[in-house]
Amino acid sequence: MKVSVCRKAHFNAAHRLYNPAWDMAKNDAIFGKCNNPNFHGHNYALEVWLTGEIDPETGMVIDLKILKDIIETEIEDRFDHKNLNLDTEEFKTLIPTAENICVVIWQLLRLKIDSKLDLKVRLFETERNVVECDGH
Amino acid sequence: MKVSVCRKAHFNAAHRLYNPAWDMAKNDAIFGKCNNPNFHGHNYALEVWLTGEIDPETGMVIDLKILKDIIETEIEDRFDHKNLNLDTEEFKTLIPTAENICVVIWQLLRLKIDSKLDLKVRLFETERNVVECDGH
Amino acid sequence: MKVSVCRKAHFNAAHRLYNPAWDMAKNDAIFGKCNNPNFHGHNYALEVWLTGEIDPETGMVIDLKILKDIIETEIEDRFDHKNLNLDTEEFKTLIPTAENICVVIWQLLRLKIDSKLDLKVRLFETERNVVECDGH
Amino acid sequence: MKVSVCRKAHFNAAHRLYNPAWDMAKNDAIFGKCNNPNFHGHNYALEVWLTGEIDPETGMVIDLKILKDIIETEIEDRFDHKNLNLDTEEFKTLIPTAENICVVIWQLLRLKIDSKLDLKVRLFETERNVVECDGH
Amino acid sequence: MKVSVCRKAHFNAAHRLYNPAWDMAKNDAIFGKCNNPNFHGHNYALEVWLTGEIDPETGMVIDLKILKDIIETEIEDRFDHKNLNLDTEEFKTLIPTAENICVVIWQLLRLKIDSKLDLKVRLFETERNVVECDGH
Amino acid sequence: MKVSVCRKAHFNAAHRLYNPAWDMAKNDAIFGKCNNPNFHGHNYALEVWLTGEIDPETGMVIDLKILKDIIETEIEDRFDHKNLNLDTEEFKTLIPTAENICVVIWQLLRLKIDSKLDLKVRLFETERNVVECDGH
Repeated sequence: MKVSVCRKAHFNAAHRLYNPAWDMAKNDAIFGKCNNPNFHGHNYALEVWLTGEIDPETGMVIDLKILKDIIETEIEDRFDHKNLNLDTEEFKTLIPTAENICVVIWQLLRLKIDSKLDLKVRLFETERNVVECDGH
Repeated sequence: MKVSVCRKAHFNAAHRLYNPAWDMAKNDAIFGKCNNPNFHGHNYALEVWLTGEIDPETGMVIDLKILKDIIETEIEDRFDHKNLNLDTEEFKTLIPTAENICVVIWQLLRLKIDSKLDLKVRLFETERNVVECDGH
Repeated sequence: MKVSVCRKAHFNAAHRLYNPAWDMAKNDAIFGKCNNPNFHGHNYALEVWLTGEIDPETGMVIDLKILKDIIETEIEDRFDHKNLNLDTEEFKTLIPTAENICVVIWQLLRLKIDSKLDLKVRLFETERNVVECDGH
Repeated sequence: MKVSVCRKAHFNAAHRLYNPAWDMAKNDAIFGKCNNPNFHGHNYALEVWLTGEIDPETGMVIDLKILKDIIETEIEDRFDHKNLNLDTEEFKTLIPTAENICVVIWQLLRLKIDSKLDLKVRLFETERNVVECDGH
Repeated sequence: MKVSVCRKAHFNAAHRLYNPAWDMAKNDAIFGKCNNPNFHGHNYALEVWLTGEIDPETGMVIDLKILKDIIETEIEDRFDHKNLNLDTEEFKTLIPTAENICVVIWQLLRLKIDSKLDLKVRLFETERNVVECDGH
Repeated sequence: MKVSVCRKAHFNAAHRLYNPAWDMAKNDAIFGKCNNPNFHGHNYALEVWLTGEIDPETGMVIDLKILKDIIETEIEDRFDHKNLNLDTEEFKTLIPTAENICVVIWQLLRLKIDSKLDLKVRLFETERNVVECDGH
């Protein structure tokens, strides 16, 4: 029987939604206030879910301290208290929508998580807007 | 890779659980206090989840403002501050349990949401009672 | 040193905001959708705060089981799964706004709580609308 | 169309993570502070999800009062205000990690829930650590 | 007897903590990651509490729709999806710490709220950091 | 004008409510399941509120990193993953009710917090049971 475990984390960042292939009017029409050239920001809340067998010796799917360290190194150090558009490689040419941030986080974590474990990422941009991605 | 996005909404309504094919004693036995003929009520909280591909131009699965407008027109305007049994067509002959409300919301939204997108609806009748429906 | 202790409770009820001294147009202007003649409803969440000295023998201000029983008898049995306008004595001639419900709950509990203890009541009509009353 | 319904519950318990096949140093290395020989404890929050057809006569998948009673008898009476290592049969020889507790709860409930209904259990050990199990 | 009522609101903004009278090293020492020159951001949650007498005709301390409109015009329109340092008059020369934002919001609302009503503002910069101000 | 700032923290602990001056029957009558000799436990959530003037140079009442460090050293290191009855000096002869834990935390923090700042402590033993203490 497989079990899923979740670790939550947080990061606070500034961003702007803007497609350089469009003029300002179209960017305003599509992205509204999110296209403020001076940026706005969010408290992003993150849930990382891993699914796999329980190790009978430890009673755990994964030591959550290990997962916590991976999330800190790969996600929090990279994105916390950053301007996603200006300070990160990932969003230099990719629009930092919640959807794209969620996919990027999934890809960054997938490289560091044992391939025996399924991975799902849920990202809360606000309490009302949530995105989820499991690689399928 | 597919991504799921969620928009939350709320509506406050009165209702009564009552099956007219049964006598009052059986209705009381099955529905207890929920069969109060003068009605009681809830703050319903709603999560609408859509799953699909990210549009590379916008970085979005769907513009959440569009989803917000669909939920307002189809669900909030129909059910908010209403008596579900007396004021709505949907529950004139269907018992307004959380399960039936969830299915009705799924059906109403399915008609308005692009068929390329999968749809899941989660309804909180109270913090402790939750219902979910994805059309399967 | 005094300490405050809190017990939370819930009740679900239907209500309508309506002043019989006014005509329908004025009631609609003041109360909007809350004046639906068929009622709407809420999940009310209640916090009851008592302030007093710690009993050195028990380490408690009050046995919270006693407070829980008082809340059940005085508030939940009276208001849960009820129509506040039709089913209760308290709101036969008093408009069941969150403010008035909060004051009525404070008055009902004050009669049953030891006068050595200060009493404060906080009532959540929705997550966004909250009322508080401490008798001053 | 199938619908999922959820009932939430809570229990407060003490536990210790410790594998008797290992010496104290290895237990400390793997389980850290969770290996305190005098135990520590948690408020466990539980979500029980059942999936099935809606009964057209009641409008319900299951009467949630029945599910509430099963959870009280099988889970809350067994684990609430208990020391999981010392007071329960289930964890006499099984390490009471959140993963193992979740699987044990799933197994205990599966015996009492109609086999027509799918069962999923989600257990919150803290707000940040969550485990989920659906029997697959 | 006086009653307090609360309305909640939200705004998302970018900011930077930086005192121009200090050099970069001192700003880093005091403000740490919050001194990122490219800004970071938060979902600010706001509670506005008003205390006063209940109007016997309406059963209300204040029509919460009026309070909601004041908060939208004075606070949300001014700060939502803005860069507090660059886009607002209020924080051109005042460091936008949670404390200063809370006091500025209190001052802006105090001008628009009837002086018969006491005013308290609570601001959540994150779930863990909260600030409160009542003008005393 | 004075402003209050809050920092939240958490600790997980085991405890037992038991007065050695009473026999087991009286302890059971007063403390019920909380008198389990093998202990039970909780996730305690803590809010520490400080009230004072804003420092015009930093825009802060206190650097919350300093407050966070004080809470870690004085409270979390002392109580987290501990058995309050067996592992701590504070509750060797004092019953670890939520009320007494709250007062002890207030006293421990009062020694370390600048006397210019008022101190209030709020402790959540569960989501439904909360205690508050401000030294008066």
